[in-house]
Amino acid sequence: MQFSRFGERYTGEAGILQLMDDLGDALATDERVYMMGGGNPSHIPEVQAYFRQCMERLLQADGAFERMIGNYSPPAGDKAFRAALAHLLRQEFGWPIGPDNVALTNGSQTSFFYLLNLFAGPFADGTRRRILLPLPPEYIGYADVGIDGDIFIANKPDITFLDRHIFKYRVDFSTLTVDDQVGAICVSRPTNPTGNVLSDEEILRLSDLARAYDVPLIIDNAYGTPFPHIIFTDARPIWDEHIILCMSLSKLGLPGLRTGIIIANEEVIRAVAALNAIMSLAPTTAGAALTYDLIVSGEIIRISQKIIRPYYRHKAEQAIAWLHEAMDDLPFYVHAAEGAIFLWIWFKDLPITAAELYRRLKERRVIVVPGHYFFPGLAEPWPHKDQCIRMTYSQDEETVREGIRIIAEVVRRVYDAA
Amino acid sequence: MQFSRFGERYTGEAGILQLMDDLGDALATDERVYMMGGGNPSHIPEVQAYFRQCMERLLQADGAFERMIGNYSPPAGDKAFRAALAHLLRQEFGWPIGPDNVALTNGSQTSFFYLLNLFAGPFADGTRRRILLPLPPEYIGYADVGIDGDIFIANKPDITFLDRHIFKYRVDFSTLTVDDQVGAICVSRPTNPTGNVLSDEEILRLSDLARAYDVPLIIDNAYGTPFPHIIFTDARPIWDEHIILCMSLSKLGLPGLRTGIIIANEEVIRAVAALNAIMSLAPTTAGAALTYDLIVSGEIIRISQKIIRPYYRHKAEQAIAWLHEAMDDLPFYVHAAEGAIFLWIWFKDLPITAAELYRRLKERRVIVVPGHYFFPGLAEPWPHKDQCIRMTYSQDEETVREGIRIIAEVVRRVYDAA
Repeated sequence: MQFSRFGERYTGEAGILQLMDDLGDALATDERVYMMGGGNPSHIPEVQAYFRQCMERLLQADGAFERMIGNYSPPAGDKAFRAALAHLLRQEFGWPIGPDNVALTNGSQTSFFYLLNLFAGPFADGTRRRILLPLPPEYIGYADVGIDGDIFIANKPDITFLDRHIFKYRVDFSTLTVDDQVGAICVSRPTNPTGNVLSDEEILRLSDLARAYDVPLIIDNAYGTPFPHIIFTDARPIWDEHIILCMSLSKLGLPGLRTGIIIANEEVIRAVAALNAIMSLAPTTAGAALTYDLIVSGEIIRISQKIIRPYYRHKAEQAIAWLHEAMDDLPFYVHAAEGAIFLWIWFKDLPITAAELYRRLKERRVIVVPGHYFFPGLAEPWPHKDQCIRMTYSQDEETVREGIRIIAEVVRRVYDAA
Repeated sequence: MQFSRFGERYTGEAGILQLMDDLGDALATDERVYMMGGGNPSHIPEVQAYFRQCMERLLQADGAFERMIGNYSPPAGDKAFRAALAHLLRQEFGWPIGPDNVALTNGSQTSFFYLLNLFAGPFADGTRRRILLPLPPEYIGYADVGIDGDIFIANKPDITFLDRHIFKYRVDFSTLTVDDQVGAICVSRPTNPTGNVLSDEEILRLSDLARAYDVPLIIDNAYGTPFPHIIFTDARPIWDEHIILCMSLSKLGLPGLRTGIIIANEEVIRAVAALNAIMSLAPTTAGAALTYDLIVSGEIIRISQKIIRPYYRHKAEQAIAWLHEAMDDLPFYVHAAEGAIFLWIWFKDLPITAAELYRRLKERRVIVVPGHYFFPGLAEPWPHKDQCIRMTYSQDEETVREGIRIIAEVVRRVYDAA
């Protein structure tokens, strides 16, 4: 059996796949593993109780459960859900949107598979366009989606030090250029992996740039506002005809139900619906059915602000305190934790690569993600790429605290040996 | 905003999309519509009661609901479900398979998007391969999935008349050739749209042919055995290392939960898992979680054989009786209804095209699917392609009976006017 080029492209040497296999192997042990690699959100009991109630209500409402399981939704997703969400966002932020500006997908990864391939790769006019990432490191899940190979250009960020152990990336507008090769600009906000939240000023400048060059600005809002609101600053969300805002129910606590949401102009929504139809007939119904009442009542915003945000904020602060405790003597910098569920740690002038550090940590059964995977499109050599790791702090306290203690031990040995 | 070639390919003039828009428009009316176009399975109350119980059990089992909603599954799908299904199939049919021969996807359409692009399109050696469809008409959903455009070669079938109004397609092995241009052979069994069930002999010959040319035989078992078992003949299912069997929970009554199943050798399963990871991180969990107990107990087979098969068989027989009643005087032929939820009706020497018939029926608010969409890859002119329609008989009795009455009326007028 032979695979096509498409098959070889997607099943071959993609970094993310090797890493996933590797993580799978690491977990296939009876010993305790400190899993800080993945992006599974926490099981927050109070939030889970809400979803349990939602399912019980669905079962009680006449025929609602049967409709959820028994009917294909339209290709753009359930119309009532889309109308309710458009209404909620209109109410919250004043955006001029209706149900035809909303499409559901089988998760945010699916949204990005669609969108990045819609706006990058070969074009009918013979040109080839790319996705501009103005603020790497960026989400590892983007890296391999290009049907036609590598589709990114990334711009090296500015680094600001906020504290003896805290730093922050900022968009370097002095070097950021958009030209005919750019098909779209894309940022995650809050950023996965860094927890950065682009400032309102940065986002407005990117939006203006995108509008000026007639390309969309794609904003990955998987951790953002108004839900799940894992964002600890006062960032204002924006939307416009040329902005494609991607949301998700995953980090609210429903990753198993694979529900991505795209807010965009009607032309983009039609394209997404067409892609849904061709690649999966229709998006899955369970996430939308389960959360419909919470969207209609706006309760989803209250849950996000009153429960989810404080929960993760506390965990982030705790993890950072443990980092300081465990390695204050080491030249580490953690990125300002402004949102999302990760800490991004930079070990300045680390004498080994992050890949090698990952390997040594894995030997100690601590799983993190080495940083070099998060710089697709950044061609220029930059030692910084090999000096960072991403760790998830969504696990239980003991895992995170002990994981950090082991990381400190391993890293200290590396510096000491140099 | 401009779309890439990928975007233009999938959002442009694809027949299925135009048809779907058209169906959507047709349904956007307050008047009664006789919807016999789609493939939504019936809501069978007895079966729905089972699924309701499954969800209630999930809610009662400690933490099971929370795990379903709150955890990403592995890229190939929930391991316990895959092990249970492999066990069930091993037990039923003796196939030498384990969990690593099973992958879940976000629905059968997603399975086919993966598989058809894995085995057709451009190859690294510079060749271009196609999917051989040995028994068109074939499922409309295959037609547009090729990333690189048209990827099918179809072989004109033999037609046998079984009765004054019943016919059957058979594979014409005298003209069927496999060469280097073929990347895989693909059949649906039962066939969507015709309700044909390839005989054991036909399937074995196709399997031998595929093995001889070292290409996979992809069998679309969405309506087949052991579930949902919407199959009215005694067809024996087969599997082998070079056979890729695609199943689904949709026609069991769970289309909303988008759960496709692929049974294949481990290399293909690894490729499917990789595609899941890159295109959607992980498959959705709800279908597998809901039916897990039914798979473990084998109850899913009993439900299929004792409830689902007799239900559809009765509906098929009823619909065929109504066809005879309504148009016995017309030169119509219905394909032998051996499975699936459709009737495929051939109006011999119809003086107008099926597309025009579709339009006239739509005016009368009867929605069917014109037959010419079901012949991808059959390049040679064949008037037969324009003389057929597919109608679903899964709707309520009144819809089907009255729909058939109106079809007879419209078609009679067409013949009379000629």
